[in-house]
Amino acid sequence: MSKAVGYAAKAADQELEYFEFERREPTADDVEIEILYCGVCHSDLHQARNEWGGTVFPCVPGHEIVGRVTAVGSKVSKFKVGDHVGVGCMVDSCRTCHSCSEGHEQYCENGFVGTYNGADKHSGGVTFGGYSNRIVVTQDFVLKVAQDQDLAGVAPLLCAGITTYSPLRHWGVGPGHKVGVVGLGGLGHMAVKIAKAMGAEVTLFTHSPSKVEDAKRLGADQVVISSDPEQMKACNNSLDFIINTVAAPHQLDDYMTLLRLNGTMTLVGLPSEPHPTPNIGNFIFKRRSLAGSLIGGIAETQEMLDFCAQHNITADIELIAMDEINDAFERMLQSDVKYRFVIDMATLAVN
Amino acid sequence: MSKAVGYAAKAADQELEYFEFERREPTADDVEIEILYCGVCHSDLHQARNEWGGTVFPCVPGHEIVGRVTAVGSKVSKFKVGDHVGVGCMVDSCRTCHSCSEGHEQYCENGFVGTYNGADKHSGGVTFGGYSNRIVVTQDFVLKVAQDQDLAGVAPLLCAGITTYSPLRHWGVGPGHKVGVVGLGGLGHMAVKIAKAMGAEVTLFTHSPSKVEDAKRLGADQVVISSDPEQMKACNNSLDFIINTVAAPHQLDDYMTLLRLNGTMTLVGLPSEPHPTPNIGNFIFKRRSLAGSLIGGIAETQEMLDFCAQHNITADIELIAMDEINDAFERMLQSDVKYRFVIDMATLAVN
Repeated sequence: MSKAVGYAAKAADQELEYFEFERREPTADDVEIEILYCGVCHSDLHQARNEWGGTVFPCVPGHEIVGRVTAVGSKVSKFKVGDHVGVGCMVDSCRTCHSCSEGHEQYCENGFVGTYNGADKHSGGVTFGGYSNRIVVTQDFVLKVAQDQDLAGVAPLLCAGITTYSPLRHWGVGPGHKVGVVGLGGLGHMAVKIAKAMGAEVTLFTHSPSKVEDAKRLGADQVVISSDPEQMKACNNSLDFIINTVAAPHQLDDYMTLLRLNGTMTLVGLPSEPHPTPNIGNFIFKRRSLAGSLIGGIAETQEMLDFCAQHNITADIELIAMDEINDAFERMLQSDVKYRFVIDMATLAVN
Repeated sequence: MSKAVGYAAKAADQELEYFEFERREPTADDVEIEILYCGVCHSDLHQARNEWGGTVFPCVPGHEIVGRVTAVGSKVSKFKVGDHVGVGCMVDSCRTCHSCSEGHEQYCENGFVGTYNGADKHSGGVTFGGYSNRIVVTQDFVLKVAQDQDLAGVAPLLCAGITTYSPLRHWGVGPGHKVGVVGLGGLGHMAVKIAKAMGAEVTLFTHSPSKVEDAKRLGADQVVISSDPEQMKACNNSLDFIINTVAAPHQLDDYMTLLRLNGTMTLVGLPSEPHPTPNIGNFIFKRRSLAGSLIGGIAETQEMLDFCAQHNITADIELIAMDEINDAFERMLQSDVKYRFVIDMATLAVN
């Protein structure tokens, strides 16, 4: 075991603060990574504040990790010291269930091992995430990152990127498709960029007139102010697919009616309180579907990173210092970020 | 114009009674049909009692029609006098919109012409349905019925059959699939027979222990009492597809959790009051979908009839006389029918 440092919540009602802990020595299959950047995801805040229940404290959040390999175990063939790599929401899974064997580790029937607050197979305790200076991960859950990309902007791809890429890919979005993206936050801005790069015509739905220009800059072909019934009505029966990134409870009907025959709306955010119940007539009379999707599998995450590198896609970020994380949480709650905070881990001094 | 007779509701709060009206003379494209049997669908009751609003009185219900061709127009090539034919929920559509041009007349963007209470293109009034001695329908909305089938048992295929066949077909049900059918009524008993004939392993979900044996006789491999949490739990994450025929409001979560990864539950009944709002977590964590489906297109209805003829599938029915229809409505409300009332139109005397 060797010392690591990071920022942890010691209790649900406490701010994150400096924390020393231990990482395992790399086993034969492990990759040791010096963390360079870590994105700040809403899930980090939910977990740190125990808003989902089940948080084990102290809790070191962070699952949008980009770093540099500093050591590899004897059986590691995929990575070498110096490589740029990423780690997302998972650091392991059962690897034997039907979902895992099909490459859907995110749907592991025995529960994947979360990058933080997961059941650590090695320590017997919980996993500690990316708000830290280094991490040790089994090579099968480490992703390759292109050497020439903006690494800070790549970090959010590991969660926000794959969470939007996976459903767009699964539901076959491509040229000729009209795709709606609901919400322009960390997830929504990635969905716009990725759907556009896939060749779709993209309509962004937002409550905020202030976001119209930015949405177009990011690649939206059209921006609709979702609080304007006339603008919404003009989109009725027009979209092949909608990715809905808004977790706050809202009327799903407003968007279901925008789908064409056989269209699907996929939710990627879990509301803390239920959405109002949808009108099933909107489903039946156009054979529409409402679906959900969770991050993506490891192979698919690699595919997404390669796709983003090829299309020169990174997240739009605000780089912060580690000790700014508590302010960043508060600003994130106000949606006051364009569009993802990323921690520059060089600012994390080892005491 | 020539005289037709049938049974009509004269107002929402009145029983159906003998009614004389006129049918058009067959045009060049029309088929004139002597109605032999007409199934009794819940929709008939909803419409007759104006429970959906918009009913024009007098209202002659009935859209599960089987009969014999008595005359054809000069341009009719598909049918000849003496043929056994069927008419389902639609007697026309715009035929030009995207949905119609793809054979999805049931999703006609300009609204299909319902077999009853539809906007009759010829009369300018509303259409009168199958609780009558004869009907005139454009040949493109008439279906061929095998000459050697039990015609009374075929009648319910025109609505209950296609409403269940279409989603089973659309979602690709076949050998190796585990399919759930929720509810054992007119729709559910057809879904069991058809899914089984498609090669799926069928689990029937019912509240009624009294229906277990019958469900197995109809083809269910397994019957689950849906009010028993242990039996339900044993099915968690096991089904590829569920067709849910229950229109009464109920907890969709109870069934969504039975779906495997990527599974879909399709609702074919429109609840009068909304279902409780579903838990989106059940969608996200297994990439499950909730969908709706409406009857089927004309070509697909023919395919279904041919499939049912090939597999010797008809509905299980109770044959009634025309003047028993009001009692039948009351019994239907109590689910006291196995599994569809069919009116023997020979009992409709012309006064």
